[in-house]
Amino acid sequence: MVKIFIIGAGRSSTSLINYLLKTGKIKNWKVTVGDISIHLAEEKIQGFEKARAIFFDVDNLQQREDEIQNADVVISMLPASMHYKVALSCLKFNRHLLTASYVSNEMKGIEEEVKRKNLFFLMECGLDPGIDHMTAMQAIDKIKEQGGTLISFKSFTGGLIAPDSDNNPWNYKFTWNPRNVVLAGQGTAKYIRNGKYKYIPYHKLFSRVEHVTVDGLGDFEGYPNRDSLSYRDVYNIGNIPTILRGTLRRRGFCRAWDIFVQLGITDDSYKLEDSEFMTYREFVNTFLAFSPVKMVEDKLCDYLKLSKESEDFKKLEWLGIFSDKVVGIKNASPAQVLQKILEEKLNLDTSDKDMIVMQHQFEYQLNEKLMHLTSSLVSIGEDPVNTAMSKTVGLPLAIAAKLFIEGEIKQRGIVLPILKEIYEPVLAELEEYDIKCSEKVKELEPYAVDED
Amino acid sequence: MVKIFIIGAGRSSTSLINYLLKTGKIKNWKVTVGDISIHLAEEKIQGFEKARAIFFDVDNLQQREDEIQNADVVISMLPASMHYKVALSCLKFNRHLLTASYVSNEMKGIEEEVKRKNLFFLMECGLDPGIDHMTAMQAIDKIKEQGGTLISFKSFTGGLIAPDSDNNPWNYKFTWNPRNVVLAGQGTAKYIRNGKYKYIPYHKLFSRVEHVTVDGLGDFEGYPNRDSLSYRDVYNIGNIPTILRGTLRRRGFCRAWDIFVQLGITDDSYKLEDSEFMTYREFVNTFLAFSPVKMVEDKLCDYLKLSKESEDFKKLEWLGIFSDKVVGIKNASPAQVLQKILEEKLNLDTSDKDMIVMQHQFEYQLNEKLMHLTSSLVSIGEDPVNTAMSKTVGLPLAIAAKLFIEGEIKQRGIVLPILKEIYEPVLAELEEYDIKCSEKVKELEPYAVDED
Repeated sequence: MVKIFIIGAGRSSTSLINYLLKTGKIKNWKVTVGDISIHLAEEKIQGFEKARAIFFDVDNLQQREDEIQNADVVISMLPASMHYKVALSCLKFNRHLLTASYVSNEMKGIEEEVKRKNLFFLMECGLDPGIDHMTAMQAIDKIKEQGGTLISFKSFTGGLIAPDSDNNPWNYKFTWNPRNVVLAGQGTAKYIRNGKYKYIPYHKLFSRVEHVTVDGLGDFEGYPNRDSLSYRDVYNIGNIPTILRGTLRRRGFCRAWDIFVQLGITDDSYKLEDSEFMTYREFVNTFLAFSPVKMVEDKLCDYLKLSKESEDFKKLEWLGIFSDKVVGIKNASPAQVLQKILEEKLNLDTSDKDMIVMQHQFEYQLNEKLMHLTSSLVSIGEDPVNTAMSKTVGLPLAIAAKLFIEGEIKQRGIVLPILKEIYEPVLAELEEYDIKCSEKVKELEPYAVDED
Repeated sequence: MVKIFIIGAGRSSTSLINYLLKTGKIKNWKVTVGDISIHLAEEKIQGFEKARAIFFDVDNLQQREDEIQNADVVISMLPASMHYKVALSCLKFNRHLLTASYVSNEMKGIEEEVKRKNLFFLMECGLDPGIDHMTAMQAIDKIKEQGGTLISFKSFTGGLIAPDSDNNPWNYKFTWNPRNVVLAGQGTAKYIRNGKYKYIPYHKLFSRVEHVTVDGLGDFEGYPNRDSLSYRDVYNIGNIPTILRGTLRRRGFCRAWDIFVQLGITDDSYKLEDSEFMTYREFVNTFLAFSPVKMVEDKLCDYLKLSKESEDFKKLEWLGIFSDKVVGIKNASPAQVLQKILEEKLNLDTSDKDMIVMQHQFEYQLNEKLMHLTSSLVSIGEDPVNTAMSKTVGLPLAIAAKLFIEGEIKQRGIVLPILKEIYEPVLAELEEYDIKCSEKVKELEPYAVDED
């Protein structure tokens, strides 16, 4: 009897756990779900008498080693920083491990040993990273097999709000960790365009977006992610002249978000004096120069060359950032105050549905022709529990776990789902859950690739 | 016979060493000058047979302890980060120490022991910090003694080029460490204005300057330094509603410098790919979006809303940043490349003279009247060796050393030159070297201090 140990029973684990419980019932697997909240773990296994829910503290070495030793396959849905501890225990007791998180430098350090012990450590097998890898590699392999030469690869992913639930001027709600959204993009974005490296500092990021259209959904915009360059090695397309990865938002979002960046209120590197008793209005004023006569609204508009009639300004007003509400957080960073203000307006309502949008854009030379392939994936949540995020993060991992248990995956070591033996069956099965790419190919006019 | 050990014989030590050698000849002091370059040390003591020049490596523990034990007073002109080692040895052998650098957190950690051992560790006694402390405290003490109440204190200092040597469109040359100039201002500027805390992110710093006029020299502008707030405690003016410290540049400098900041080319936090073989023009292009038709110059102007006819653009062209010269530095950060480009044009010529400008601006209430005091100090270098920088950094420290040796300073512990017993005689003697403030007092119309 195969024993599976799932660590983490939070929101994004719902679909993963469901899939493995249902499949496990048929296949006669023994599934254990552990979480620091026993309540959450119990909730997730309801209706499956043979499954086991336990209180599990990853920092309790004894418990960690006992439970991991007692399993055949471990699936960690913990925050990325906690995987390494789990990985070390898996290594110690020769257990296989699957996660949806990026391969960290720590993990790279144990790569040789994982291989030597013939273990399967599948990582980056959720949505982003995960489905992005699989769908990109599928398209890249197909283009190469046709004899095509890749010229450009741009890829955008966004966790957004479903059209039916989209009822605010930002066309955005927090469907994912709000803190990560507030801090997103800090640092320098690095990509390559027509063979030239390009760098965008954070304070210019939200004004240098790409326009993206998705059939049936309309207009989006994508701002570049920090690191696009490393994907050349991952996808084995080292010489591609253009590669850019970005984050999708609804059109108009980035220009308004840029106001926060320009003011400096997404900064998390220092604490504000007297933040606790500051009003939202005073918070904004703190980033504007003194004036004995001008109102905060007017100072902001003059400073950032905004019109009070603009959509951008209306987005700010709608958030209530000019109100006299009190911040109420001691020693808060600007980013923490901004997050609080945003959460009051951008959190999901109980009836809201989320939406995942992903689009890959390829350009390639094929038989003297310049071709353009767009591959778009849209997934809409069913309800606040069975969200698109939970499905797209959890199902790839769950399906991969099943395939591995059934002996369908031969590769060992630290593995990404960029191998055909993984992405083909996983993507095929994801289609049953209506998670699939729709593709559009067209021929392009040749264009100049040189500059200046 | 009093023994003085001066560590560091670089450019900024010239005036200090000269003063102590001349004074020491009369007073019969034994002066030793140590430097990692024995050549520099020997050069500085020429003409003084009794002085001793030695090769000195601060990282050689044996030598450091020997030389410090062998001295009565140690003066360290080393880079700030090296003072702590010297301080520990001074503490071990009960020797007094004088420096021109800020009190670091490490130094604060030994404050109690310095006091307990009745040692004199004078710090921050150069120009900035140093003369700024002394002249500010003299003015503040005077205003308080008159019965005045301080309302506002702004203070600006700049290391600039003398008017006679000012022959480029930036009205600026490197009279100080170019790397520090390129990186200046990074982080968040914090100050207080009419009782409200204000924060300026780096990408807005150079567009939020204050206009400063100095009699006889004309127009300058000051951009806020990172930390203005801590000076409230240092100067014992905790409740002052407005305090701002800034760095002076000639008018127009900051707007042009802001172009570098907006592009992101003052960033020192990452390395550019292929920097070695990049031209200056390609370097600039790396921070601009791709265009198959537009020239780099046009892309830059469009991006930052500049006119090609503007003074700002002319400043860029004059630097040669659009040229096909090759960078030639491996794994360079953007800031390192920018520094190289700037050094080719902004380094001092052999005949150039530097200039120090400092201005304090006070507002205070006195007998129902609102008063404004401007205190300005200008010092121009004699030649490339006896620079204004060397005089204004070295002489305060040298004079303080003499006063201490002669028993004129009673205070012990880690001491700043904010005490009357130090600043009064030091400032009095600095006047003999033509380093003095000229003051201007006027009455102001009352103004609104409330906002929004």
